[in-house]
Amino acid sequence: MTTLTSGPACPAPRGVYDRVQLGHGSGGKMSAQLLRDHFLPRFGNPHLDALGDGAVVPVTGGEIVLSTDTFVVHPLEFPGGNIGHLAVHGTVNDLAMMGAKPRYLSAGFVLEEGLPLDLLGRVLDAMEQAADDAGVTVVTGDTKVVDRGKADGLFVNTTGVGVLVDGFRPEPTAARAGDAVIVSGPLARHGMAVMAVREGFSFESEITSDTANLAPLVAALRDELGSRVHVLRDATRGGLASALNEIAAASGVGVELEDGSIPIPGPVQAACEMLGLDPLYVANEGVLVAFVDAGASQDAVRILRSFPQGAGAAAIGSAVGEHTGMVILRTGVGGTRVVDMLPGDQLPRIC
Amino acid sequence: MTTLTSGPACPAPRGVYDRVQLGHGSGGKMSAQLLRDHFLPRFGNPHLDALGDGAVVPVTGGEIVLSTDTFVVHPLEFPGGNIGHLAVHGTVNDLAMMGAKPRYLSAGFVLEEGLPLDLLGRVLDAMEQAADDAGVTVVTGDTKVVDRGKADGLFVNTTGVGVLVDGFRPEPTAARAGDAVIVSGPLARHGMAVMAVREGFSFESEITSDTANLAPLVAALRDELGSRVHVLRDATRGGLASALNEIAAASGVGVELEDGSIPIPGPVQAACEMLGLDPLYVANEGVLVAFVDAGASQDAVRILRSFPQGAGAAAIGSAVGEHTGMVILRTGVGGTRVVDMLPGDQLPRIC
Repeated sequence: MTTLTSGPACPAPRGVYDRVQLGHGSGGKMSAQLLRDHFLPRFGNPHLDALGDGAVVPVTGGEIVLSTDTFVVHPLEFPGGNIGHLAVHGTVNDLAMMGAKPRYLSAGFVLEEGLPLDLLGRVLDAMEQAADDAGVTVVTGDTKVVDRGKADGLFVNTTGVGVLVDGFRPEPTAARAGDAVIVSGPLARHGMAVMAVREGFSFESEITSDTANLAPLVAALRDELGSRVHVLRDATRGGLASALNEIAAASGVGVELEDGSIPIPGPVQAACEMLGLDPLYVANEGVLVAFVDAGASQDAVRILRSFPQGAGAAAIGSAVGEHTGMVILRTGVGGTRVVDMLPGDQLPRIC
Repeated sequence: MTTLTSGPACPAPRGVYDRVQLGHGSGGKMSAQLLRDHFLPRFGNPHLDALGDGAVVPVTGGEIVLSTDTFVVHPLEFPGGNIGHLAVHGTVNDLAMMGAKPRYLSAGFVLEEGLPLDLLGRVLDAMEQAADDAGVTVVTGDTKVVDRGKADGLFVNTTGVGVLVDGFRPEPTAARAGDAVIVSGPLARHGMAVMAVREGFSFESEITSDTANLAPLVAALRDELGSRVHVLRDATRGGLASALNEIAAASGVGVELEDGSIPIPGPVQAACEMLGLDPLYVANEGVLVAFVDAGASQDAVRILRSFPQGAGAAAIGSAVGEHTGMVILRTGVGGTRVVDMLPGDQLPRIC
């Protein structure tokens, strides 16, 4: 006798959820529903739609650039963006700083049980928009769900693949004494925007995050200046100070900054002073620092200023042969101070 | 007058920590120390040692395979392995199931403040060992720290890059009526091993996780059987039942299983019965399911059995032209039951 009986589980719940449930991480019907309702409509492409264990993607040139970053910013939304913008821009920018053209992203989510699905939707909207704008495709992904109280809303890892173009390979070790040091825009906006909303501060002018895709700026620098660009770095966690210290140490040069030339928006400066924070250490999510041939300094600033996200670009100092590994700030009153690495955190969970 | 004064922060603490601190996620000196003391000694290689924003790695063939997975298993250690084994094997296996030879991994960590550093060390030891054994290199990474109570010890994302070999491309859509269905080993060990330690059960015989690298098995199947291998899938979250349902739906075939032929270790079967769990839905971390030409069935089983992690390989059923998209189990007493997808979770946070 042949009988068809139902499987060991209850019928699939047909309810409409407005929050993430543990079952959404099961790999069963609820997982499939979450993917179908929330992820595929935004990121749908032949790679992702195949729902395989991964994606096969074409690359050129025999080399790829790989970069990974996990985002744990708190809170998930802040003036000027949300964790979804950071997750795309952060990895795209890391690829760009290596000289690569960003091509593909993977996205791995840890969702906390109870996360409102409309908040997840806004994060995914931001990722979709940012990926479209950057010309990158989310080709594979993964979602896990952990029980309430075992995460903080959501964390997301993005890992990016880029391809090199025309042998352009800026490196943190490639700064030379004499190089001009250039930033692509005003500092410390992202950290202070997150800080303000986290702590419930209200400043006179709203401070917004600078989260932005820097790859077009890098492409323009590459096309016009090529190998005259020695080092590129985005000044994220740890701020400009940490980025410069890492480059100084890696390249065996000193760095001298002119205090008055460093662009910091007035409201950001005021907020930093109120909170006792040094803007040189506050995270940016849309500012790069470049070390270029001294003779290319003005061109680099001009190129960067031709982009909206580079409108505030400025030359802020130079690499020197003295005090190698150290960053020195020349202050307005004729003094100097060492801009050291911080030991720990000014602002935890900023990205 | 020139004065050198210290930066805005206190001197770097010189203390030796035995637990993760928030400052370890700052991007400052403590982050650098964590990397230097715990990560680089294990994974050190020229790519990672450069400490850039990413890694430049060579690839061949004009195509790469990209796969991502985040691991949130609770608890972090269990009989037979820890989250570090899963993090390497899981992504390596996903690449292998796509037909790729695994080459590179990125690793992105979320660490909870207070995580014992010796536990982190054991996880990294496992990752190092598993990566070495699998012949993959961890080329780039990222660590973030979140405050106590905002994660669960640690989560880790691995994203893998593999390269295709000889055009071998098994796909979930490629099963055909008549194909033999083969598993590479006994089922449900991983899920029950985690369950036992999580719930404090003690079974008569210790059940250990099956976490294992399946890439060598795939390479051998590819070399001997080539395109006679149609579909490969590792039966992880959701177990064999979910994997088979996904393949049946994607390929438009039905699947018929012979109950008596499905290898389930006695102690695992007993534990499942005690807990009211169906082993077909319990996660495996070292078992693949293959759909192969009917005529290649015996060869496939022989090839798999030549590996320690494939010693229990067995043919368990076939793909059929009827009841497309459905998986049917023929039971010993002559009946059948539908093996449907589960709606939600039998065992949350299993990987």
